[in-house]
Amino acid sequence: MGKKWKKLMKNMDRQMALKTALTMLEYDMETEAPEEAHEYTSQMVGILNSMLQEEILRKDNGRLLDQLEKKELPEERRKMVHEMQKERRRMAAIPAKEYREFSALQAKASTIWARARENNDFSSFEPVLDRMLEMTKKMAGYRAEKGQKPYDVLLNDYEESFTMESLDPFFAMLKKEIVPLWKKLEPAVKSVDDSFLYAKCDIQGQKRFCDYLLDVLGFDRRRGVAGESAHPFTTSLHNHDVRITNHYYEDLPVSGIFSVIHETGHALYEMGIRDELTQTPLGGGTSCGMHECQSRFYENMIGRSEAFWIPIYGKLQEMCPEPFAEVERKEFIRAINKPKPELIRVESDEISYFLHILVRYELEKALFAGDLKVKDLPEAWNDRMEEYLGIRPKNDREGVLQDIHWAQGSFGYFPSYALGNAFAAQIYYTLRARYDVDGLLREGQLGVITEFLRENIHQYGGLKSSREILKDITGEDFDPSYYVRYLKEKFTGLYL
Amino acid sequence: MGKKWKKLMKNMDRQMALKTALTMLEYDMETEAPEEAHEYTSQMVGILNSMLQEEILRKDNGRLLDQLEKKELPEERRKMVHEMQKERRRMAAIPAKEYREFSALQAKASTIWARARENNDFSSFEPVLDRMLEMTKKMAGYRAEKGQKPYDVLLNDYEESFTMESLDPFFAMLKKEIVPLWKKLEPAVKSVDDSFLYAKCDIQGQKRFCDYLLDVLGFDRRRGVAGESAHPFTTSLHNHDVRITNHYYEDLPVSGIFSVIHETGHALYEMGIRDELTQTPLGGGTSCGMHECQSRFYENMIGRSEAFWIPIYGKLQEMCPEPFAEVERKEFIRAINKPKPELIRVESDEISYFLHILVRYELEKALFAGDLKVKDLPEAWNDRMEEYLGIRPKNDREGVLQDIHWAQGSFGYFPSYALGNAFAAQIYYTLRARYDVDGLLREGQLGVITEFLRENIHQYGGLKSSREILKDITGEDFDPSYYVRYLKEKFTGLYL
Repeated sequence: MGKKWKKLMKNMDRQMALKTALTMLEYDMETEAPEEAHEYTSQMVGILNSMLQEEILRKDNGRLLDQLEKKELPEERRKMVHEMQKERRRMAAIPAKEYREFSALQAKASTIWARARENNDFSSFEPVLDRMLEMTKKMAGYRAEKGQKPYDVLLNDYEESFTMESLDPFFAMLKKEIVPLWKKLEPAVKSVDDSFLYAKCDIQGQKRFCDYLLDVLGFDRRRGVAGESAHPFTTSLHNHDVRITNHYYEDLPVSGIFSVIHETGHALYEMGIRDELTQTPLGGGTSCGMHECQSRFYENMIGRSEAFWIPIYGKLQEMCPEPFAEVERKEFIRAINKPKPELIRVESDEISYFLHILVRYELEKALFAGDLKVKDLPEAWNDRMEEYLGIRPKNDREGVLQDIHWAQGSFGYFPSYALGNAFAAQIYYTLRARYDVDGLLREGQLGVITEFLRENIHQYGGLKSSREILKDITGEDFDPSYYVRYLKEKFTGLYL
Repeated sequence: MGKKWKKLMKNMDRQMALKTALTMLEYDMETEAPEEAHEYTSQMVGILNSMLQEEILRKDNGRLLDQLEKKELPEERRKMVHEMQKERRRMAAIPAKEYREFSALQAKASTIWARARENNDFSSFEPVLDRMLEMTKKMAGYRAEKGQKPYDVLLNDYEESFTMESLDPFFAMLKKEIVPLWKKLEPAVKSVDDSFLYAKCDIQGQKRFCDYLLDVLGFDRRRGVAGESAHPFTTSLHNHDVRITNHYYEDLPVSGIFSVIHETGHALYEMGIRDELTQTPLGGGTSCGMHECQSRFYENMIGRSEAFWIPIYGKLQEMCPEPFAEVERKEFIRAINKPKPELIRVESDEISYFLHILVRYELEKALFAGDLKVKDLPEAWNDRMEEYLGIRPKNDREGVLQDIHWAQGSFGYFPSYALGNAFAAQIYYTLRARYDVDGLLREGQLGVITEFLRENIHQYGGLKSSREILKDITGEDFDPSYYVRYLKEKFTGLYL
């Protein structure tokens, strides 16, 4: 028994070592690698990826997992076996030839998507997307249990135990509440001046302020690094090496500011995972939804609250006098929260963000149900945008081509963004019941809140599911009504 | 036949992919990784290393190499098989248990050495060094052919076909010529003022100038990156991703300047290797000696020549007015070449550099012959320094503890530094016979010289040995008398 476990751990170490190498190489390609490196380095990445696949599918690995799965194991070990088994089964279910085709398609599709977006030409992306959808559906079909729908298989990948059955009422309820809230806010916020958010702001000053924010947020520089890349992201080699990146725009300083808060939310999660779990399959955040919960909690509930800015707004004015020296803190808060129809998801406010996800969820469902053809996607996208947000994209670049997810075959991923927001709201109200959250923020005591999250979420890594975490923190099952309450209270308070 | 070759290439790709990952992780640990990452990342590096060892020792790999070695193959393939076979045999000759012990000792010894140097305490390093010497000797013994001495096995690792038989007369000849040259120069250079080299110089200005130098030297930024680390080094993922690092000292600006020239010499070599050879065992510089030949050619023959500075000295004065604005170019040249007794190898001038290597060569020989015990090493070191350079280290930090090489088990490495210098001098005179080298430099036409090196050295990677390269360029076998001639002409011209 101990011997089998030891053997499994040896296999696990090999898989983790290859994953660490792949994470490192990918991070480097996004940040430091010179322009011409990609083509050559990608070949090595491809080989390492197939070595990883081999390791996972090794016969002795499968045998060990099958045997250990049947034994009574301590909780932590049981979960590790479960995670490794899940990954192995996912891979094993797909014929090697198709898996290779899919990997090749992924690599190709991202490039074709990027070019199509650049040229605003959906038709050049259509055949690849069509094939991608077909393959994803087929591969999910291999993995489906009896009667399970392929789209549910994918939803479950990103957030365990969430399927259409639970997401449909979630989206329906939110749609019912948020579309009217949006209509009510729209006339009221028209007069809110946010022109200074689009004024020129010295990049060096932005960088200094974002660096200062890292300390405010409690980013541990001994186990983290902050760099730059084309699009901000977070990655982690293990809990003692977590990297975030940022991107600065001269005429949109809040982009860099809220990106650094968002990514630090992800980073604090990864840094807070227990040492015993790191470098194991439980050594990362438990799900996309819970990760997004952390990042958007810091970005929105903390980072866009007035209390958070009370002790630090002066620093922003000092480091970025142009344009903030003349802007009152209250004006700033109303500007950074101002809801307005925005065609691009990642630039949208908290309210329209949900509507963006709703559009994608409905379209994905229709695509998987066969009710919508890829060629009709742009039209369907634009119609929904017009219906929910009152704006219609003038071209596909600001419409259906804006996100990379589908090009990578990540169908079923978007809903986890909405779930993350809803998780965050539910946790937020528990926090407020226990602490004077605004009072802590006003006094620069964000650490107390982070400690709460570390204690109740971060440290567990993949040991608890999102649902278990919510239950343990709030005493309740997942309840999206908190999300509605949060949006209503916040935006009514700010603008009505 | 084609099938076997294909199989071998598949094995090779796996080895190269692991090596690429290891290079990447090591580079990252020296540059960007946060402080606490090392302990955790090192574990993954250890696993990747043993996976690489496994790949190399795989039975089918050995069988393929044995079969292909006997076939008539085109030159390039023959060389690849030769290199792979060499690496495999080196590994296979050593019992797995000893190899593991050696790897563990290497990791441990570097840390103990660093602490011993820090605390200036040779006695704490002595037992580890003793064991390291014993193991290195034993392991070289396993690999020795009949009658071959262990030290020759090691020398041959770093520079093929160079053993004590050829190195003894090389060192003897140079010793005979250089010790007297040194004695003659010493009184003459005493009055040369170089105090401004140790004056404060703004780090930002240094960085700007070093960045400018990259362009002067033809460093291709599309396939290279320049970063920072505690000690400057060069590394390469492949010929389209070559990285150099530098380190800046406020009170020693020439350190950063000559480091960037030195490392760019290494980088140009790696960048110049043919695309067909990169990501194969022939995809790096052919030997340590030839690599050092390139770096020291750029650093000394080019970088410390007056002609090189004619078009660019004004830029240095402009970017680093403090301390160079008031220094005449001629003074600068005499200062940067000034020979003076220096206890630390890496800070020493061109003449005493050779004497430093001589000391190490003689000591290594004595250690391997059993004529010297590790415990008597500090005394023996100091005696030789006094004899050759006229200065005696006051402590072991500036004596026997200064280099990391022995802690890593790299006995036999130092002579390749001296060989590199000698190769460079021999090539330099051929170049001068064909081109007006100083004229080209005065006109900023360094590219012509780099193109010559690329054409005759760089592009071949590991396809030709150092000896073959020298022969093809100069029409002669290796001849160290050019090195003596170079030193005599240069230093007599400058100071006598």
